[in-house]
Amino acid sequence: MKPSIPKGTRDFLPDEVVKRKYMFSVMESVFKKFGYVPIETPAMENLQTLAGKYGEEGDRLLFKVLNNGDFLNKADPEALSNRDSGKLLPSISKRGLRYDLTVPFARFVVMHRNEIQLPFKRYQIQPVWRADRPQKGRYQEFYQCDVDVVGSKSLVYEAECVQIYDQVFAMLKLPVIIRINHRKILEGIAEVCGIGESVSAMTVSIDKWDKIGREGVGLEMEKRGITSGNAEKVLTLIEKDDFISLSSALRTSESGVQGIREIEEVIRYVSGSKVENTFRFDAKLARGLDYYTGCIFEVESPQYRSGSIGGGGRYDDLTGIFGMPDIPGVGVSFGAARIYDALEQLNLFPDNLQFAPRILLLPMDKDSLGYVFGVLSKIRQEGISADMYPEPAKLQKQFKYANSLGVPYVAVIGENERVDEVFALKNMMTGEQKTVNIDQLIKTLHIR
Amino acid sequence: MKPSIPKGTRDFLPDEVVKRKYMFSVMESVFKKFGYVPIETPAMENLQTLAGKYGEEGDRLLFKVLNNGDFLNKADPEALSNRDSGKLLPSISKRGLRYDLTVPFARFVVMHRNEIQLPFKRYQIQPVWRADRPQKGRYQEFYQCDVDVVGSKSLVYEAECVQIYDQVFAMLKLPVIIRINHRKILEGIAEVCGIGESVSAMTVSIDKWDKIGREGVGLEMEKRGITSGNAEKVLTLIEKDDFISLSSALRTSESGVQGIREIEEVIRYVSGSKVENTFRFDAKLARGLDYYTGCIFEVESPQYRSGSIGGGGRYDDLTGIFGMPDIPGVGVSFGAARIYDALEQLNLFPDNLQFAPRILLLPMDKDSLGYVFGVLSKIRQEGISADMYPEPAKLQKQFKYANSLGVPYVAVIGENERVDEVFALKNMMTGEQKTVNIDQLIKTLHIR
Repeated sequence: MKPSIPKGTRDFLPDEVVKRKYMFSVMESVFKKFGYVPIETPAMENLQTLAGKYGEEGDRLLFKVLNNGDFLNKADPEALSNRDSGKLLPSISKRGLRYDLTVPFARFVVMHRNEIQLPFKRYQIQPVWRADRPQKGRYQEFYQCDVDVVGSKSLVYEAECVQIYDQVFAMLKLPVIIRINHRKILEGIAEVCGIGESVSAMTVSIDKWDKIGREGVGLEMEKRGITSGNAEKVLTLIEKDDFISLSSALRTSESGVQGIREIEEVIRYVSGSKVENTFRFDAKLARGLDYYTGCIFEVESPQYRSGSIGGGGRYDDLTGIFGMPDIPGVGVSFGAARIYDALEQLNLFPDNLQFAPRILLLPMDKDSLGYVFGVLSKIRQEGISADMYPEPAKLQKQFKYANSLGVPYVAVIGENERVDEVFALKNMMTGEQKTVNIDQLIKTLHIR
Repeated sequence: MKPSIPKGTRDFLPDEVVKRKYMFSVMESVFKKFGYVPIETPAMENLQTLAGKYGEEGDRLLFKVLNNGDFLNKADPEALSNRDSGKLLPSISKRGLRYDLTVPFARFVVMHRNEIQLPFKRYQIQPVWRADRPQKGRYQEFYQCDVDVVGSKSLVYEAECVQIYDQVFAMLKLPVIIRINHRKILEGIAEVCGIGESVSAMTVSIDKWDKIGREGVGLEMEKRGITSGNAEKVLTLIEKDDFISLSSALRTSESGVQGIREIEEVIRYVSGSKVENTFRFDAKLARGLDYYTGCIFEVESPQYRSGSIGGGGRYDDLTGIFGMPDIPGVGVSFGAARIYDALEQLNLFPDNLQFAPRILLLPMDKDSLGYVFGVLSKIRQEGISADMYPEPAKLQKQFKYANSLGVPYVAVIGENERVDEVFALKNMMTGEQKTVNIDQLIKTLHIR
């Protein structure tokens, strides 16, 4: 039997695990600095919790877990005889795999309302599963990384979102553009263009700007019933880079005015501190989800052309679906897979993410094994990652292993070295070789 | 709708996540020092990979993932009309959730044979899923933590297993007893007691010693067809604490002699270095799994009475089931849930695992918000975790929030403080209060 893994899933080799851990640890260090705390939720949720939360498409893409035991025992007989998969489902499966981190978080907030204090600031880094058709860069299992604060309408948290994005990507040395807009500004634009009732159609169209450009968005709006005249008005407004003239154009719309005022407040908070990356207002930013009600964010890296690497925004009601209304919040998400890709492409992972031991000890004969193991233990006792070839194989074979591990140093130990208590230490980078005692050996290994 | 999670699964609150991260980071630091590297495998494996690997019971306890889309379309018609769940299964589900980390690791080694170098030393810390009936301390989703080296028969690695256990638990400050035995010693005991063909029955019986004691094990052996005379001989031998007289008793058994010799070699390696915990040979250690062929290990904490907190051993053939024979290995596993429990019960988690920010800034009025946010940004810029109450609420409410977060400091900031650029800093532990400037504030927060 030739083993395989399900399509759309991946194994991670040490190199990848170490790089991903680095990426997440950078994010976590920033989240913590901002007072966000980690939570984790189970991989399996009740289908009742998940179903209907992601649209029809989402329901289709949920992975469902079969009930255990004799699952047909309680199966819907009619659905069985009609071979109706959809109708049979609820009677044979009551659990599904987490599809995102937002719905489980909403469920978490409701279930633990008495254990948490609002505003509650949490981050969550866990895999999610989607039965999307696998293709390059799209997997059925992938990590999401979300930061949210719920239970407050304060715009201070929008400013935090911007700073968090800025600081994470500054630490990762990945230059980005952080764009901000406001759903109420989009509403205002729709209103002053006389298409207040079509704000959804307008938003969905604008959301495609990056893909289809100005003309495309215009046609898209027309396709959705907006006249070409009104579409043109919209296009002219969202292209305004000039915040002052946009706010003047929106002065007759209550929503528009509120959106402008809130964006101004966020910009005021943020501008008091250093933002290393480009942060800019962009009325062309729409974000597809209906879900958002206030500020929206999106992050791109100019050097990485495969789409946005993060996004988020404010929502009015996270937990209403679970019977706990009026819990507003704001949060941002990091596109872990794409950020990883970008760091890889741009060669931004630090050089010192080595997982190879500092040294491999090479025993020359069977009699040296115990001695070498003792030396190894001493080196490790110093907190230095070290290893030995586990048997006295041919030197060539041992060197080959050392090379494949990528260790910076090897030390050959045979009878002579053992008797003299010295080591033939070789720097694998420079080829330099010298004879050292144990103290000199440990000192060398400590120097990075 | 009142939300819930599947029985046997758990949410983890920040406190628990932080403690678990600490526990795993201690383990990882030791694994790395010993040259082990991390890998990760997908949560879903093909059922072909998992089925039949864990016995009948295991097959029952596997979580199966329903095929996506119209899963009944390709369902076995006969099984459908007979309502035969077992027979229907393969036609409607081809994936299952990871049940342990060993089988996925074996699959990984075979699939990545050209990307890894033997001996390959890996660790893996990931959740697994089992449809066990949930009960206190037993969950359907839980973390496993495995360290293995494959591709070598060297006993150096057995010695590493002992040292890894010792050093991890020493760092966790959890005193443990590390027991070691050898499958070939058990074989030898069976041989010299004249029940060589019943070694399996004998091993399974001895495995219950901790639960049912000497007499119970005797009866268990008799129940499995070993005469009471032979059972008594076995009991007498396995009770021998005296390694020398045991080895003398086993001198006529080839297996026994080999087992003794190997244990001696491991003890020799280990005794050259400091082992802080109790490490001892124990012929009463059996470990149930058929799988093991050489040294076996088990770890208990004398202060924690709910069973072993780790175990492992050597196996001859990890990957034969996947068509790659003769890959031996040795490894140990850490019982993450029980170790967590033990650390909690014995109050061994460090005090400084705080996730609360160092300080909460309390704005007194709306006009101070921007100023406070600026100060907050400065503090965070210093790498200090800090937060603010996001709006000028009543002081009492703000203090209540500060208390619930558990922050060690708060600073009240109103118009006066703003104008004077000072802070009314309060130590929440001591109640001490003083007025400080920004430099003094940051200096105080840096001191731990």
